Amino acid sequence: MIVTVTANPALDVTYRVDRLRRHTVHRVRAVHARAGGKGVNVARILHTLGHDVLAAGLAGGQSGEDIRTELTAAGIRHALLPVRRPARRTVTVVDDADATAFHEPGGEIAAGEWAEFRRRLTVLAKGADVVTLSGSLPPGVGADGYAQLTELARAAGARVVVDTGGPALLHAAAARPAVVKPNATELLDAGAADVAAGAAGAAAAADLVAPARRLVDAGAGAVVVSLGRDGLLAVTARDAVSVPAPAQITGNPTGAGDAVVAALAVGLVTERLWQAVLDDAAALGAAAVLADVAGDVDLAAYRRLRRGDAAHSVG
Amino acid sequence: MIVTVTANPALDVTYRVDRLRRHTVHRVRAVHARAGGKGVNVARILHTLGHDVLAAGLAGGQSGEDIRTELTAAGIRHALLPVRRPARRTVTVVDDADATAFHEPGGEIAAGEWAEFRRRLTVLAKGADVVTLSGSLPPGVGADGYAQLTELARAAGARVVVDTGGPALLHAAAARPAVVKPNATELLDAGAADVAAGAAGAAAAADLVAPARRLVDAGAGAVVVSLGRDGLLAVTARDAVSVPAPAQITGNPTGAGDAVVAALAVGLVTERLWQAVLDDAAALGAAAVLADVAGDVDLAAYRRLRRGDAAHSVG
Repeated sequence: MIVTVTANPALDVTYRVDRLRRHTVHRVRAVHARAGGKGVNVARILHTLGHDVLAAGLAGGQSGEDIRTELTAAGIRHALLPVRRPARRTVTVVDDADATAFHEPGGEIAAGEWAEFRRRLTVLAKGADVVTLSGSLPPGVGADGYAQLTELARAAGARVVVDTGGPALLHAAAARPAVVKPNATELLDAGAADVAAGAAGAAAAADLVAPARRLVDAGAGAVVVSLGRDGLLAVTARDAVSVPAPAQITGNPTGAGDAVVAALAVGLVTERLWQAVLDDAAALGAAAVLADVAGDVDLAAYRRLRRGDAAHSVG
Repeated sequence: MIVTVTANPALDVTYRVDRLRRHTVHRVRAVHARAGGKGVNVARILHTLGHDVLAAGLAGGQSGEDIRTELTAAGIRHALLPVRRPARRTVTVVDDADATAFHEPGGEIAAGEWAEFRRRLTVLAKGADVVTLSGSLPPGVGADGYAQLTELARAAGARVVVDTGGPALLHAAAARPAVVKPNATELLDAGAADVAAGAAGAAAAADLVAPARRLVDAGAGAVVVSLGRDGLLAVTARDAVSVPAPAQITGNPTGAGDAVVAALAVGLVTERLWQAVLDDAAALGAAAVLADVAGDVDLAAYRRLRRGDAAHSVG
């Protein structure tokens, strides 16, 4: 079983409008809501692929109830601790051209609620092969939140994949997860970098090897950096491998990183060869780009793409 | 007592962001929610002015509960019928320059729910001097919804003020309310007009006298058209009076129409002279423009402004 942890899940609400015009009033044509947050997306993708998965996390209020209801309707098992503050919402306004998103920060988690969640995850992790930890930490939880969860999941015998950024990523790496999966911005924001060459978005794979290796040195078994249309960079103590994205993929990149985490988790469960896991992760990430909504993947495209591009060493 | 009816109330949610950029993701800095909808704003303004007011309407789900909780906290009496569908939300994104709003359409009201609301309003109207009917009708309620409510409120002995647009306005006028208060766009959209001269926004007060008089002919005791910075136009069977807006008022025009309705309702309760009521309505509308949020008024400005500009006839 794979347990996905979403510390700060969201009710993802989509508003369809004719055209977004700044500083005007819009009539919303259609409202759609579903469970969201990076870890929930990972669970949804794993469920779509037919894997045994449980979506864990903390979710309060009516928005938390709405998240549970939608997961149940989708057939995804869940164990979301009810907390006092309502789960955050995200509002994504989709117009004729593209999407504009607004992400609420999330309600504060009390110390006792976090302690209770750690106790529950300890139990869940005992039955899990892999635990994934995804997304932002909610207010009230310290930057070492994912480090704490990594430690308890490892102690329970599970392998851990962490997908987060900033100080939480640095802390988590030191707790010895099997894999951390930042994107380039998150890797550079984590302060593990002193890349001379400008903005994160422009960072080439080769520029990211040194900051990624610092996370390996800190304790991560491997660092897989998602690079959007530039594919993946995987760095271990031994080598650095770049996996190109399947060519000519355009679509909605939101959720592609979650698909990569899902593939990495499956790879850890099945103990496939590292190279095969990375090829699979690149293919599943691309299949997520081809789906309209974060948490969905284009299964036909995935099956076609996973035949795999060859990776080449950059390290 | 004044009963304000909001058939389609909303939980008005405000998102503060640094700057709205189309087709990007925004972190919301602060989330604020309060009870909204035009009739709720009227109730809030009347409560601020110290009048005896009850906010009536239909509101389901957790958003309906949130609306009740906020009204209770604000000290505003309410009688909102719980219905099956959740009350709609509006999301207003406030950035460094201005506001961008997204209005959900509202959940459908079942026939039995509407019948129950009519029964309840019949009881409430017996204790009311004035009933105001404001804003859009929710899905599931026919265009004659406000006409039905006008008839039952009149039968119960109350005078009625209607603030809506489109076919609902035309229907309501025929049910003989004391006053209807469309804005220029609503008046022209009601199909009561065949103004040759271009867009509604550009319509001069003189161009609106004929369409307004058609609503008087249909049955409205008076038609008060809110014209933003051009003040008010009041048309009765006898005359047409234009009331200028107090000079040099800039601010947030949302809610100014609700302040005008509040002043008209008070005018009907106190049976003041029509001209004094209109002056008061223009002053209270301007005081609403000076307040940041719809449903608030700048009381000091109101007291200063109500000393009143003189009206002049245009009819």
